[in-house]
Formats: sequence, structure tokens, C-alpha cells
Amino acid sequence: MEEIKNYIEQNKQRFLDELFGLIRIPSISSESARKDDMLKAAEYWKKTLLSAGATRAEIIPTAGNPVVFGEKIIDPHGPTVLVYGHYDVMPVDPVDLWTSPPFEPEIRDGKIYARGADDDKGQSFMQAKAFEYLIKSNTLPCNVKFMIEGEEEIGSPNLGKFCDDYKEMLKADIILVSDTSMIAPDIPSITTGLRGLSYMEVEVTGPNRDLHSGLFGGAVANPANVLAKMIASLKDDKERITIKGFYNDVLEISPEERKKMGMAPFNLEEYKKSLDIDGVYGEEGYTTMERTGIRPALDVNGIWGGYTGEGAKTVIPSKAYAKISMRLVPNQDHVKVSMLFEEHFKAIAPPYVKVKVTALHGGQGYVSPTDMPAYLAAEKAYEKAFGKMPVPVRSGGSIPIISTFESKLGIKSILMGFGLESDAIHSPNENYPLQQFFKGIETIVYFYHYYTAGHKA
Amino acid sequence: MEEIKNYIEQNKQRFLDELFGLIRIPSISSESARKDDMLKAAEYWKKTLLSAGATRAEIIPTAGNPVVFGEKIIDPHGPTVLVYGHYDVMPVDPVDLWTSPPFEPEIRDGKIYARGADDDKGQSFMQAKAFEYLIKSNTLPCNVKFMIEGEEEIGSPNLGKFCDDYKEMLKADIILVSDTSMIAPDIPSITTGLRGLSYMEVEVTGPNRDLHSGLFGGAVANPANVLAKMIASLKDDKERITIKGFYNDVLEISPEERKKMGMAPFNLEEYKKSLDIDGVYGEEGYTTMERTGIRPALDVNGIWGGYTGEGAKTVIPSKAYAKISMRLVPNQDHVKVSMLFEEHFKAIAPPYVKVKVTALHGGQGYVSPTDMPAYLAAEKAYEKAFGKMPVPVRSGGSIPIISTFESKLGIKSILMGFGLESDAIHSPNENYPLQQFFKGIETIVYFYHYYTAGHKA
Repeated sequence: MEEIKNYIEQNKQRFLDELFGLIRIPSISSESARKDDMLKAAEYWKKTLLSAGATRAEIIPTAGNPVVFGEKIIDPHGPTVLVYGHYDVMPVDPVDLWTSPPFEPEIRDGKIYARGADDDKGQSFMQAKAFEYLIKSNTLPCNVKFMIEGEEEIGSPNLGKFCDDYKEMLKADIILVSDTSMIAPDIPSITTGLRGLSYMEVEVTGPNRDLHSGLFGGAVANPANVLAKMIASLKDDKERITIKGFYNDVLEISPEERKKMGMAPFNLEEYKKSLDIDGVYGEEGYTTMERTGIRPALDVNGIWGGYTGEGAKTVIPSKAYAKISMRLVPNQDHVKVSMLFEEHFKAIAPPYVKVKVTALHGGQGYVSPTDMPAYLAAEKAYEKAFGKMPVPVRSGGSIPIISTFESKLGIKSILMGFGLESDAIHSPNENYPLQQFFKGIETIVYFYHYYTAGHKA
Repeated sequence: MEEIKNYIEQNKQRFLDELFGLIRIPSISSESARKDDMLKAAEYWKKTLLSAGATRAEIIPTAGNPVVFGEKIIDPHGPTVLVYGHYDVMPVDPVDLWTSPPFEPEIRDGKIYARGADDDKGQSFMQAKAFEYLIKSNTLPCNVKFMIEGEEEIGSPNLGKFCDDYKEMLKADIILVSDTSMIAPDIPSITTGLRGLSYMEVEVTGPNRDLHSGLFGGAVANPANVLAKMIASLKDDKERITIKGFYNDVLEISPEERKKMGMAPFNLEEYKKSLDIDGVYGEEGYTTMERTGIRPALDVNGIWGGYTGEGAKTVIPSKAYAKISMRLVPNQDHVKVSMLFEEHFKAIAPPYVKVKVTALHGGQGYVSPTDMPAYLAAEKAYEKAFGKMPVPVRSGGSIPIISTFESKLGIKSILMGFGLESDAIHSPNENYPLQQFFKGIETIVYFYHYYTAGHKA
């Protein structure tokens, strides 16, 4: 089984060259001008799966970006692992904060710097290379399927229907996903919970045109001021979200569970230092880890309106905008929350402005049981690769599609992620340590062995 | 004296052609890339003054954009009018809201559409053409000087020093300015008060980089949310500004004065309709005209931070910004107010963010006495041209340099503006009715006659 270490050693440079080829394609799913690049990235994945040894690989169209499907079936009656990943990436702005260009991968200090280096090109590519090794070494112990989509970063709007349409093709016993993080290079962890997401855009309109702030200032409601006031009112002084009914479906965690979770290693001083902040801030009565792990949150992801250029322009803007998203805990329904938000935001709008609210995307939260065979196999795999039992962790992030898989396909997912907090995913200078990339491939190979062994037992 | 009407009739097309030449130069002072255009506009003014008959015209450098100075002295001991105007204009964004390109003047429905059509290229050009007529017709009754600057829209940062340096050259009995509006085409008015201005930019920094809103949302203060909260707190629920000491120097107007001011024609329904708003909003206890005329105001002129592109990006921005300006009433000192703002904004900043406050520009308010000879001459001039006595009006706008003239040169200004509220200055589709342009030239010619006659009497 440990032959994988030699294989990695011998193929290191090729693995990186191949990954860099994928990274160089600027497949930003939220930018409509990137359609060609999305196709190129899908083609690249098809080629990658075929050369790894898949007996079938194809690009399947959807109403949006296509899904790459590939498989290697060794026993129609044996266990099947379905690997999920995504070939799309986040936008790169502000681009001037990148040390090296986001789509020209560069290795510095043992890390790959590029958009997608971790999320999710780097991580999903580990799955491809583990798969390649198992085939080339004739040790593939089960059937493997790949489903690599191109719309994860915009909320997987077409993958639910894809699951409905190809339910039979996607049949599997477990879904394997590398798109999350572990606590530290020497503290392996497995994500057992994900938050849901409701992502809204709001537009506040005051006067029908930009006005001179001298001639009109003080007499006409300024939509930027009004928007600020409305946003401020979305939380109370205990940093609890004020949207009516928002907490109705939030499950309170028992003191015992909170205690257990509180045992995960966390250093508040290091956390503050790494972010260069003098203090953390969040809902009263919860720790930092609880605030992201078991509590919902509301954040302004973007705000804009009026004159934002150099110097001064004395204008009352006609419109002001914000992107506001809420992270939800399992059991909160994102459709319901989006509706509550819309109702609330319209209800608090003063009569002298007009308000438009749009739900941009959303997804449900997810909880992974720590006693299922796949979890136990993953636990062993991490222990063998990293020499330590992994810690189960509730992550604050969202992979909305994971809960869709459960509801549409009836399959649980196991989140074997190897990212680190310092990878700066979604941010300038995203990076992925080479060490994590190679260790990840190794761990995934072990997972296949333990998982299949468990199945046979 | 009424010969001016024929002169205008005969030279209409040339006047417009010449004005359009000036408008076509995109002299936006707040954009540093426009330095060449600033010089071009100054050259254009020099040429305009010389061909009108000025005996001296030159471009005088400053630390910023140069000032165009010109003069025609007919009697070193006689009265002197100093015309002030500016050749710089506001930025044009959002440029996609313009019906025709901002720097390609177009006449539609009897109006010139272009950036600067009114503010201040169109209005200052009336001064040049009235001057031209008086010289060509040999009826110039007094000395005339022109001072046309290129930094009015960024707060005239170098004109105070220019006044110090050229005090002797600028000596005059009255400063004549066409850079304000009148109530309506058939309701002439003269601006007798201007608000001061304090224009600030604020930067709120949270974490040292953009963060993934899932992994960190709820645990780290989001600077965009914090900024919204801070802005919201700048006014109380009576829409009074909460900055400590802000109202200390505000002069309360007597009930008699308020009553007199309230007699200026104003139609709230039309006002709301023209802005397409369902209601006005401002400080409790004051009318709409009072809110802009005699009361200070605070407005967000621009706000930005985080992801503002297409679609969704789940990010907690590292920084959020706003441009916030305050309109001040006469007797409030803009330097003091800027300082109060900075102190207050820093004082209300929570400990988990860092705040930077910059004063971008400012100026004092101004009151013009309605019993001085120049005011009485202007009153007569409007009455002759428009057939109605003009109404004295306190404008909400600011021309900070006007109070600087008073303090540095010891000269009062008379604000003979011909703009209309519908001219959309500082906004897309700025325009200036031909009727106002030509009537303005006529009125200015009358002013010179009445003013000199008054002086001789």
C-alpha cells in the first residue's frame, strides 16, 4: 500500500505540470465572458481521467457549464466511490494584491500560488492522481466514478437537475470530496458539518438620478445612507440577526456537544495575529469556533454606490447596492431564509426609497455522521498518512451541493479535504502547500483500501 | 443698451461653436490623467479672452492647474469688476447613463447636453461673450478682469495662495460669478447664501486580507458591516447629525426670516415628481427649502468595499470605504468641522477594526448682503431681462472659494447664475437651455450698465 509514496516521488514533476495546465485556464464561473475557458477546463479534466485509466469519460452539457463524468468499473456488484469536485474558480479581484499573476502558477516557499491552487483544482487533482496510481499499479479495489462540475462557486445551479437526470449513472455508495481544510499540517481533521448559504443582492433607489449634494443634501433621502442604516439594523447589539423568524429552525447544541467541540485545538492569539486584528467579534455567548461552526452569520460581501473614484465628487447617488449573504446551520432551509430576508428587508425600507431584493444563490447545510464506514476509513487513512487521528470539525463554509446529493441521490458524502486556513482561498495569493498536495494523494489511496476492506468485512 | 439682443441674434451660432470647442476638452480636475486637457482648456480661455478684446491674457501656473487671467483696463481710477469662473468639470461616471457622449455637445429640445454645459463652461462663457459685446460695441463702462481657474470641482486647493500672490493684480470692487441657478426660467433669483463644505474619506480595515465568508463569517468583524453601522450612527432618528459639537456654531434663523424665506415659490409635489420619490426626508422641524438653505447636512457621496462584480462571491472584505461630506451653514468653520468629524469617527470605531480618516476638501459658507450696490444692480439687470424682480435665495450648494475671496482679497461676490435645477449638473445628461445661455449674456450686459451707473451716481 505504501508503494504510493514511491509513485508520488517518481511522478512529482509530472503531477505538478499537469495541475498547472489546469490552473492556467481562467475558469471563473461568475464571469459570463469565460464560457470558452469553462469548456477548456472540462476538456482538460476529460483528458486527465482518460489518461489516468478511466474506461469512460465524457463532457455532459447542462443549462450552464457542463459536468465532466468519468468512471472505471471493475465489478458491477462491488462497492462504488463517486468523486465530486469542481473545475470552476472564484474571481481574482482585487488583482493588484496578487504577488504573482493568479493564472500563472508559481512555486514559492514550497507552496503553489494561483487561483484554484487549493480550491478546487489542486484538491480535486489529488483525487485524479490517486485514481491514476490505483489503476496503473493494478490495485484499484472498487468501482470509481468522477463528477467534476463547473458551477460550484456560483452555487451549483444546474447540478441538482443533473443528479435527477443521471441518477442511475451516478449510483454509488459514498461520495468522496476534497474541497475542505484541515486544522494544521500536523493536526489532521475531517469536516463533519457544513453551513448552508443564502446569498442576496439588494438595490436601494432614492432619486431618479444622481443629485448635486449641495443643492439637495439634507432634503432628499440618500440611498447610500439609507442602505447603511438598513444593513446596520440587520443585527442587534448582541450581534444577533434581527430578521424575523431567522432563528426559528436553528438547532441549539447541547452543552455536552459544545464541550466536546471545544476540545479541538484553537489558539485565539494566533488567530488574531494571523488576521492582524486586535479583537474578534461575533454573537454574544459563543466562542470563535462556535460562531463559525454551529451558529449562523450574516455578512456584507460587497457594497457600492455613488462616486468611488479618485478625489471628491459631491453627489447624492441615485442607487446604492449590497451583496449580503447568510451562513446557515443544518436544519435551516435556505429557500425559507432567503424569503424571510426579502420580506424583512422590504418591510424595513422607509417610504422614501424603493428597494429591490434578489436571491443570487443558496444551499442547505450538511452533517456527516462520524460512525459511518466511510468516515471510519477516512479516519484510518489520515492516521496512517499523518500519524495522528483526525479531529472531527464543523466548518463554517458551505458546499451547498453536498446536501443536494443526499436529498437527490440518497448518498452521504465524506469530506476529505487537505486545505489549510493559510491557503487564502477566494482571496488574492491563494496557495496550496506542495506537502499537502502530495500527502493528500497518499491519504486518498489509503482511504480506498480501508474503505473497501471495511466493505468486504 | 438693448443692442445686445441684436448682437446675440447675429452671433448665436458662433457663440455656440466657440462654447462647444471648450466643452469638447475633457477637463476633469479630479482625474490626474487629464493634466494635458486642463492646459488645453486654459489655452482655450486665453484665446477666448484675447479675441473678445482683452488687452492682457495669460496662463499663470499654480501648484495645481493654472489660472487664466485676463483684463481690459479703461480707467485705472474707475470701478473694476473681477469675473470668476472655472474651466474644470466633474467626472462623468456612470457614463452609460448619458444619452449622448458627455464631451460631444449635442442640442436636443433647445438644450445643450454635455458635461460642463452649465457648470461652469456654459455659464462662465456667458461672461466672456457679454465682455466681448461691450468691447466690440465700444460700451464697456468699467475695468474688467477675468480669473478662470481649473480646480473648482476639487475645492480650489491652490486659489487661496494665488489670491495671496496676486492680490494687487486681482484688485476689484466686486467679483462677478455665474455658477449658480435660478428658481425657474420665469422666476429669476439671485443666490445670496452658500453652504460650506467638509468632504471626508474614511477607510475601515478589518482582517489583513479578504476572507472566505463561510470559514470566518460570524467570528470576525466585517468592515463593510461595521462601516454601515458607523455611518448609520452619524444621524439620530430626527435626522440630526450626531457628531459631538457639530451644531455649536450653527446660527439659528429667526422666525421672521424663516417666514420671509418661506415665501419663495416651491411646489413639493412637483419636486417629488421631478425626482421620482414618494416622499422627502430630512431634519425634523424644517421644510425642504430650509433643509438645503439654512441647515447643515451629511451625505454619503460614495461607498465601496468587497465584491461588486457580477454574481456572487463569498468574501469578507479586508477594507470598506466611504466618501462622506457635510454641507455647512455660514458661521460653521469647515476646518473645525472636519476635525470634529475625524475625532468622532475615530471615537466610535470599535476596537476590532482600524479606521483612517482623510479630509479631501472643504470651504466656508458665504452670505451676500442684499443691500450692496452690486446686488441692487444685478436685481435691476434681471428685472430688465426677465421682466420680474429676482428672488433672493439661500442655496444649499457650496462654492468654497467665494468666502476665500472675501477673506483674502476683501472683495464681496455677486452670484449671477442662470442655471436651472433641471440642468443635472454633476450628473449624467448635464444640460443647459439655450434660452438661459442667451438671456444670461443679455442680463450680464445690463448688470455692467447699472453697476457702473450706480457707481457714478
